[in-house]
Amino acid sequence: MTLVIDCHGHYTTAPTPHNDWRDAQKAAFKAGAAILPYPRISDDLIRETIETNQLRLLRERGADMTIFSPRASAMAHHVGDAAVSLEWAQRCNDLIARVCTLYPETFIGVCQLPQSPTNDLANSVLELERCVTELGFVGCNLNPDPGGGHFQHPPLTDRYWYPFYEKMVELDVPAMIHVSGSCNPAMHATGAYYIAADTIAFMQLIEGDLFRDFPTLRLIIPHGGGAAPYHWGRYRGLADMLKKPPLDTHVMRNVYFDTCVYHQPGINLLANVIDHRNILFGSEMVGAVRGVDPETGHYFDDTKRYIDALDITPEARHAIFEGNARRVFPRLDAKLRERGL
Amino acid sequence: MTLVIDCHGHYTTAPTPHNDWRDAQKAAFKAGAAILPYPRISDDLIRETIETNQLRLLRERGADMTIFSPRASAMAHHVGDAAVSLEWAQRCNDLIARVCTLYPETFIGVCQLPQSPTNDLANSVLELERCVTELGFVGCNLNPDPGGGHFQHPPLTDRYWYPFYEKMVELDVPAMIHVSGSCNPAMHATGAYYIAADTIAFMQLIEGDLFRDFPTLRLIIPHGGGAAPYHWGRYRGLADMLKKPPLDTHVMRNVYFDTCVYHQPGINLLANVIDHRNILFGSEMVGAVRGVDPETGHYFDDTKRYIDALDITPEARHAIFEGNARRVFPRLDAKLRERGL
Repeated sequence: MTLVIDCHGHYTTAPTPHNDWRDAQKAAFKAGAAILPYPRISDDLIRETIETNQLRLLRERGADMTIFSPRASAMAHHVGDAAVSLEWAQRCNDLIARVCTLYPETFIGVCQLPQSPTNDLANSVLELERCVTELGFVGCNLNPDPGGGHFQHPPLTDRYWYPFYEKMVELDVPAMIHVSGSCNPAMHATGAYYIAADTIAFMQLIEGDLFRDFPTLRLIIPHGGGAAPYHWGRYRGLADMLKKPPLDTHVMRNVYFDTCVYHQPGINLLANVIDHRNILFGSEMVGAVRGVDPETGHYFDDTKRYIDALDITPEARHAIFEGNARRVFPRLDAKLRERGL
Repeated sequence: MTLVIDCHGHYTTAPTPHNDWRDAQKAAFKAGAAILPYPRISDDLIRETIETNQLRLLRERGADMTIFSPRASAMAHHVGDAAVSLEWAQRCNDLIARVCTLYPETFIGVCQLPQSPTNDLANSVLELERCVTELGFVGCNLNPDPGGGHFQHPPLTDRYWYPFYEKMVELDVPAMIHVSGSCNPAMHATGAYYIAADTIAFMQLIEGDLFRDFPTLRLIIPHGGGAAPYHWGRYRGLADMLKKPPLDTHVMRNVYFDTCVYHQPGINLLANVIDHRNILFGSEMVGAVRGVDPETGHYFDDTKRYIDALDITPEARHAIFEGNARRVFPRLDAKLRERGL
């Protein structure tokens, strides 16, 4: 039997008081006023937002659990300052922890980081440690462009990021490379910014030698790896022109793509081009694209159907649904083992 | 018989004196000095750079002609000011015109535009008109991010671009949406910036209603449409969420993708997902990826092989190699008809 583990789910349906508090926090920052106390949110309200959305869809679609993180588009690291970002990240992560406590068999946490455009990653190191050691989280979402849409940060291979990688390695947790909302009117968040940032991140990893310095670091590039699998020949050729080793050894020992690609031909290409050991099942559900595909009659983001339809070996399917997630998230694997799974 | 028309070729092998003059022009701008006179470049030197490169490869690979433009990565609209950009564009376009005069059966011109980040498109309108009416060019390369890598320009659907679209419609020429070199250390030009910009441009077109205002405008998104075909389900779903018509009618009456995708699975996906009427053969040759694919023993950018290997109808293949190019570039079609083709 295979567990179906969705590596990419966001709490996009967080309770209204949580979102209202965020609005108040932003307004207080603008006005230079004191921040309101965070509201009391009942377990029942959390249950309602989860059971009518993520949990319902998970069951309807036949998945078993979700690696769950705060809403990515609302991380908004460019809003406010470092203190605003820190408190917002902590509130979001604490809320995820409550979901995981209510549904310990179904949701396991991945944290938002308190990044801030002009700051270093010291706060993010501390928050990662808190989430992993105190809240039982198994990974994090690392924003490669905390400025929100103009790509003004150094590449992921730059030493700016190294203190954070050191903590990731120490804690043995991976990061999903995930931007947040776009404050650039030329760049739609989920249609342009996300996919562009994924592609840019992958090329940064090709240009650098990050995994020489961090041989056990593991990064997930979401949304099917951006454009990378579709342009795999370009990337193989560019690695060669840049005098790098072949992609298999240069980056693909450390980089994983999820399956948030919302049609069968895209998933077919992903599974055809990328080694199945580098593919993690993900749906981004409830997320970017919420409608039903008129061509299939099924939800665009019901990505399990596309994997089910792949002509691959049972071993490859097991790896995509379960095995790779347990390998990339060893702390998840440990918890599953505790449960005899 | 089908002509094989490569819609995407750059003069990446321009004569050294041309490139040297550009260096001198940039240095003069920096120093506030007078610009050196443009050097005399002999026909023989031009012939040598073409015959040992583009023409040789065209013949070896079995293509008939190339829609030819200045080196995209060297347009560098962010360098200097509007006057620097104007003179550089004119020099580059005049050089393309000389190639087309020397090889009128093989090369037909597409112009670089004298865009400049803080300027409007008045100079570009004039240069387009000059190139089309005086030099016999059939299209242009329009840079959606003349700032060079931070995406600070308004989306392509913004009225900023309208005066240029009006001239394109009047002259009945298409534009390839093509960024230039990256001045962003986080963004490799051909591996990250090009593909990200293609993807961003496509999403801008989905978000707007440009073709309601310009029903005959034709735009080519190069490099296989960036990530768009791989994420076609996402884009169909986002159009639906944005209450836009289906992509077929909303954008795909006016938007075309080339075949600069450097491996067979990518081209297979492109041809599977995108109507063959929207695909134009292109190689970007001599361009971004110049090596031989060790998996096939052939050049990565020998994209004709991938089209030849597609399981498609003869009509579809004819459209991709010739028919679509003649429809999208009516001035090319007219010239071919003059030659009895």
